[in-house]
Amino acid sequence: MKRTYKKSMLPVEKIRKYLEPGPIVLVSSFHKGRNNIMTMGWHTVMEFSPSLIGCMITAANHSFEMIRQSGECVINIPTADMVETVIGIGNTTGAKTDKFKKFGLTAEAAKTVKAPLIKECYANIECRVADRRMLDKYNFFILEVTAAQTATYPKYPKTLHYRGEGIFMVSGKHLSFPELFKPQNL
Amino acid sequence: MKRTYKKSMLPVEKIRKYLEPGPIVLVSSFHKGRNNIMTMGWHTVMEFSPSLIGCMITAANHSFEMIRQSGECVINIPTADMVETVIGIGNTTGAKTDKFKKFGLTAEAAKTVKAPLIKECYANIECRVADRRMLDKYNFFILEVTAAQTATYPKYPKTLHYRGEGIFMVSGKHLSFPELFKPQNL
Repeated sequence: MKRTYKKSMLPVEKIRKYLEPGPIVLVSSFHKGRNNIMTMGWHTVMEFSPSLIGCMITAANHSFEMIRQSGECVINIPTADMVETVIGIGNTTGAKTDKFKKFGLTAEAAKTVKAPLIKECYANIECRVADRRMLDKYNFFILEVTAAQTATYPKYPKTLHYRGEGIFMVSGKHLSFPELFKPQNL
Repeated sequence: MKRTYKKSMLPVEKIRKYLEPGPIVLVSSFHKGRNNIMTMGWHTVMEFSPSLIGCMITAANHSFEMIRQSGECVINIPTADMVETVIGIGNTTGAKTDKFKKFGLTAEAAKTVKAPLIKECYANIECRVADRRMLDKYNFFILEVTAAQTATYPKYPKTLHYRGEGIFMVSGKHLSFPELFKPQNL
């Protein structure tokens, strides 16, 4: 039985809080009646408002065409207890496999896109493809966040951060220094 | 007295190991006889070979024009003991201040660019601007790594990962599961 979370909506300009530290994420998509999930590590926040995310998805991935053609996806943030699921999803092709079924995950309806949320993840960030100009040369999607929700507890998730070679860093303790910042830079 | 490291060269296609987990970085630059440093959190690996990094630098930053005009920079990875320096650099403009001097950092000559390395950082990734097509709309640089070096010890740095609002996550323990990966996916 996998862990699930009670969640609340997060303003889209606040997704930085969970995405900027660099977690590995699970990207879910929907196209022509089928769901899929992929594991992704190459992403960055690009703007607060509109809330933009840039990410590289190898064109050989089954998810690449599903996201390109549907123009939508959900970025789901898994926690460290899901490490074997994260690896399994990253080492299975969605061309022939229903990954929700294979990995015992629950597809939930999203608020703003047809791609499903992964219920077992700490946060779910719904996105539409906002700019395709970097796709041909770099397989780089620019996504606009259309809705987001995160768990209400714990305050910070134990996230996975990939180093290559099968090794993940797990997020550690937190340091808080708001008093050292100019207010506009927080 | 700040910590310094003994370093060795890192093949440019291997920078993922340190950059993909999402650390906050210090970007050093050189233009018209002056050095500068900025703090940056919005970056992603984009390709192994050529070794590409994408990053967003606000155009209002003094470093933006220095990097745009010189076509070069160095991405330096600081460790958690440098947190007050990282915040200080991010809350000071380089227009009037020599940040190396102000923050007691050592500028070292790079191998392939005129921008200086920050000696006190765990890793130094030398870059040239490879693609400017995303600059006007998104302030997004695509950089090609031209050389990289990292500390030989410790194996993994204690890095800082920014969450906004003055709060940093510090990298924690490591999990290793190479046996669960297909060899080509490691």
